[in-house]
Amino acid sequence: MKWFLYQWYMEAKKTPKIITLTTDFGLKDPYVAEMKATILCICPNATIVDVTHGIDKFNIRMGAYLLASVSPYLPEGTIHVAVVDPGVGTRRRSILIKTKHSYFIGPDNGLLILAARAQGIINIHKLTNPRFMLPSVSSTFHGRDVFAPAAAHLANGVDTTEFGPEIRDVVKPKFTKVMLRAGELVGEVLHVDIFGNIITNINEREVERVQTGEQTR
Amino acid sequence: MKWFLYQWYMEAKKTPKIITLTTDFGLKDPYVAEMKATILCICPNATIVDVTHGIDKFNIRMGAYLLASVSPYLPEGTIHVAVVDPGVGTRRRSILIKTKHSYFIGPDNGLLILAARAQGIINIHKLTNPRFMLPSVSSTFHGRDVFAPAAAHLANGVDTTEFGPEIRDVVKPKFTKVMLRAGELVGEVLHVDIFGNIITNINEREVERVQTGEQTR
Amino acid sequence: MKWFLYQWYMEAKKTPKIITLTTDFGLKDPYVAEMKATILCICPNATIVDVTHGIDKFNIRMGAYLLASVSPYLPEGTIHVAVVDPGVGTRRRSILIKTKHSYFIGPDNGLLILAARAQGIINIHKLTNPRFMLPSVSSTFHGRDVFAPAAAHLANGVDTTEFGPEIRDVVKPKFTKVMLRAGELVGEVLHVDIFGNIITNINEREVERVQTGEQTR
Repeated sequence: MKWFLYQWYMEAKKTPKIITLTTDFGLKDPYVAEMKATILCICPNATIVDVTHGIDKFNIRMGAYLLASVSPYLPEGTIHVAVVDPGVGTRRRSILIKTKHSYFIGPDNGLLILAARAQGIINIHKLTNPRFMLPSVSSTFHGRDVFAPAAAHLANGVDTTEFGPEIRDVVKPKFTKVMLRAGELVGEVLHVDIFGNIITNINEREVERVQTGEQTR
Repeated sequence: MKWFLYQWYMEAKKTPKIITLTTDFGLKDPYVAEMKATILCICPNATIVDVTHGIDKFNIRMGAYLLASVSPYLPEGTIHVAVVDPGVGTRRRSILIKTKHSYFIGPDNGLLILAARAQGIINIHKLTNPRFMLPSVSSTFHGRDVFAPAAAHLANGVDTTEFGPEIRDVVKPKFTKVMLRAGELVGEVLHVDIFGNIITNINEREVERVQTGEQTR
Repeated sequence: MKWFLYQWYMEAKKTPKIITLTTDFGLKDPYVAEMKATILCICPNATIVDVTHGIDKFNIRMGAYLLASVSPYLPEGTIHVAVVDPGVGTRRRSILIKTKHSYFIGPDNGLLILAARAQGIINIHKLTNPRFMLPSVSSTFHGRDVFAPAAAHLANGVDTTEFGPEIRDVVKPKFTKVMLRAGELVGEVLHVDIFGNIITNINEREVERVQTGEQTR
């Protein structure tokens, strides 16, 4: 009887698992809902949070930036799924990154690394185990067929090692390096927000360095 | 005491009931939120999933297509509410369809049938019982006043027979029949997605039939 | 043991706390997700309902109208957070209004009063206690740093008196008074919805008064 009560107690205490979604799918098509449906089939208690589905089509850098903006605000253990995936159906890999704070799932095209690196990467696994994919995987929609099921199984407690072999090298996001040219900092615009704010890849420290006459990298 | 513990246990085990929403309301106006609010008043534990609120205004066929795309991915017992309703306030009926897999609630204008038929229709009830509507039903917003409350009461366990009399004939969606004309398949565009994919009502089997020289219907 | 079971029971019975969001942030940027993330860190069981994030930029009257439209449909105890906040970073105050039905949190610029007054205001508190804000409060995003944490702490049971001192005078929304000029009612358009419906600040009673020849205010 004691064991039975304990099980019960653990069930009641269980905090909902948070899964976030970041895509370039928009909200008109059925794709986001198909991902959510897939997650809820596997993990009915998941709390799904939309980061945004308004990434410019195939704009990996914008996706990387927005994911890196939001992810620090989410609680420990959150599972982030991101899909800006021009290479779907090619040989690009599907990956799961475990960091000191949370998890990132998506294509290996640079989308996840900015956010993951900021949290401290522990390890990276390829998603190859078909047990954690939908029974039939399309060549055009890994968001629904590979990434969403992986997130839901992870939320259910499946260990990261079960999804596939560990890998070490991943695709790095292609941001222009910030440069100092004739006293000017040259960087890149990552995003223009609804209020007209322009976000670049030049950070506060680099501006200070120029102001104090320090050389930038 | 035993009974008390049992009640408790059932409460803890209760999986959240999923209610999906598919409308042409957009996300700027308060209408979607009023539907969600109504659902949560009646069934506080409902998990609400937006299929899309971006159906082209009054485009029943687009709504029918998107609902039929997403519904197979949702778990058994899901309650789908769809509102693309040019006939609201006229004599068109409100209906609840029970299928082998889930439930569909909305106007009787063809919107629900495509998705429901794919799952195997068990029975169809007219929504006439005022007990399961808001106290005052407007002539322009059955989504909030009739469909949302019906979905929430259904999620709470009300039997489908209590909502109103069973009916047999419903409005069929008006899709052009796919035709073979001079060696060409003639169908209809249902939806153009954000990536530029064009979805027609011609299915794989019909294309194969033409390729193999079989006559189409 | 009895006490332990009681705790358990209370945990199981706990209805999810509903927090609504009404903003002019749109859905492309990370801002809405940052607010939701902040809420879920503090109150993991919150049920978050989007009223709309499509308020025209800085349009306080449109926000006030939409919030007042939706709020009557939400259950008792709901916490409404609204952010249309051109004065963020200036000396405008942050407030928490307790009404007979629910709670409203946002800037003191008229956004909340229309909805709150309709429910009967009990008291108003300034949000000044840093214990219920994020550790570092930006001068541009009180939605995430002040309002979202306040809502989540309130959902966790913090008493309204703990957020800051009670105040009496708040900024009133600037709606044109409805006037009768040469037999015509002159009011103001608050919102044009997706179906082309034009919503004004002239109510049914005022139209009736004119029809019956009564003088309007």
